[in-house]
Amino acid sequence: MSGSSKEHIIKSYDDELTRLTGEIVRMGELAVSQLEAAIDVIDRRDERAAQHVVNNDDAIDLLEQEISHDVVRLLALRAPIAGDLRNVFAALRIAADIERIGDYAANVAKRSIPLSMVAPVSPTSGLGYLAELAAQEVRDVLVAYRDRDAEHAYQVWKDDAELDEAYTGYFRQLLTYMMEDPRNITPCTHLLFMAKNIERIGDHATNIAESIWYQVNGEPLTAQRAKRDFTSNPELTKLGNKD
Amino acid sequence: MSGSSKEHIIKSYDDELTRLTGEIVRMGELAVSQLEAAIDVIDRRDERAAQHVVNNDDAIDLLEQEISHDVVRLLALRAPIAGDLRNVFAALRIAADIERIGDYAANVAKRSIPLSMVAPVSPTSGLGYLAELAAQEVRDVLVAYRDRDAEHAYQVWKDDAELDEAYTGYFRQLLTYMMEDPRNITPCTHLLFMAKNIERIGDHATNIAESIWYQVNGEPLTAQRAKRDFTSNPELTKLGNKD
Repeated sequence: MSGSSKEHIIKSYDDELTRLTGEIVRMGELAVSQLEAAIDVIDRRDERAAQHVVNNDDAIDLLEQEISHDVVRLLALRAPIAGDLRNVFAALRIAADIERIGDYAANVAKRSIPLSMVAPVSPTSGLGYLAELAAQEVRDVLVAYRDRDAEHAYQVWKDDAELDEAYTGYFRQLLTYMMEDPRNITPCTHLLFMAKNIERIGDHATNIAESIWYQVNGEPLTAQRAKRDFTSNPELTKLGNKD
Repeated sequence: MSGSSKEHIIKSYDDELTRLTGEIVRMGELAVSQLEAAIDVIDRRDERAAQHVVNNDDAIDLLEQEISHDVVRLLALRAPIAGDLRNVFAALRIAADIERIGDYAANVAKRSIPLSMVAPVSPTSGLGYLAELAAQEVRDVLVAYRDRDAEHAYQVWKDDAELDEAYTGYFRQLLTYMMEDPRNITPCTHLLFMAKNIERIGDHATNIAESIWYQVNGEPLTAQRAKRDFTSNPELTKLGNKD
């Protein structure tokens, strides 16, 4: 094989990986807008819009299948260069996590339909706040993925603690409403499930962060390992303590 | 390449696929035993056993990563024969669904810890029934996968309706306890989440059924398509109505 043919094949493979990355980012952006639409639907109590979100989830699921197909075909047709397997492996995992995020967003929208049929209960606004935290995590982690930025991914991974805390607080709020008046129990149960779905979106965003870290650094992201990375903790450089 | 070398490569690929199938079945059996352990933990209120189940989930997650790695490496090293891509694609999806099943089982076990810290409430036995339905679905679908049996997969897919119905009934039971006495709300909320996790296990079992159907028949499983399959509806043979 001539030098230029080999270069051509390597270039094609890079092009394919770039295209794959773009598809995954696009899929992630769809999932984020699904989440935003789901919260809008709760605020406006719009059943048709809720059904719209539910239907859109099929598009995200299809994208994930296409991405998996592309990956499988890519590997079957082109012998990858050492190191590319990690990119491909990360692409598969991240696409699967984004598909879950889309699912959870659709679940939130789906649940707004039975919610709108029962008496309104005041703390729905807390849900919007949770959703915005989760949406920002997903947006940030998609940027980190596009830029292959492990540090940024680690930042998102840490920031998920804020969503977990907000979820716990919201959960406790709902409990007080339920205890106050039995008529609040059914609507609050719906809100509880919706909040749980949103908290899970955050979990999947941290999964994506871990995949990015592994893809870039070749080792799993753990709190200890990340702390010892001197670029995230300047103090350690002083102590000369670098792993 | 000599004929026997070519045969050797084909045989190796088949061996690898067989090994992969075995690994996936083993992973699924782990997930089922996790679910059984989780329910046992609730009944016995055993915190240490609950932690044990949570820790075991790492083993299932690791298995899924290994399987994904194996698939990626398999494709990279051996040009697959036409049709094998479908097997490989199904393997990836099914491993991901089993990993979710393991996650949900671990979540059920994890939640038994806060549950044991609050006043007991009687309908925990309903949860065991839901879990047994779900566990049977998973066992059945693993057999269907091992045997590449699309009809059996379709049967599991239909049977999930029973779990959905039982879940709804259990949910309604819990609502009455919550409305009866505010002190029941917190424990019932835990049971609610556990029941939801179990219901989701059933959803993932149906996902696996759909993957098996697609792998064997090359087209997606939908209620209509499956009904028109004359082997599941003898009436249609009489009418001569075969798709």
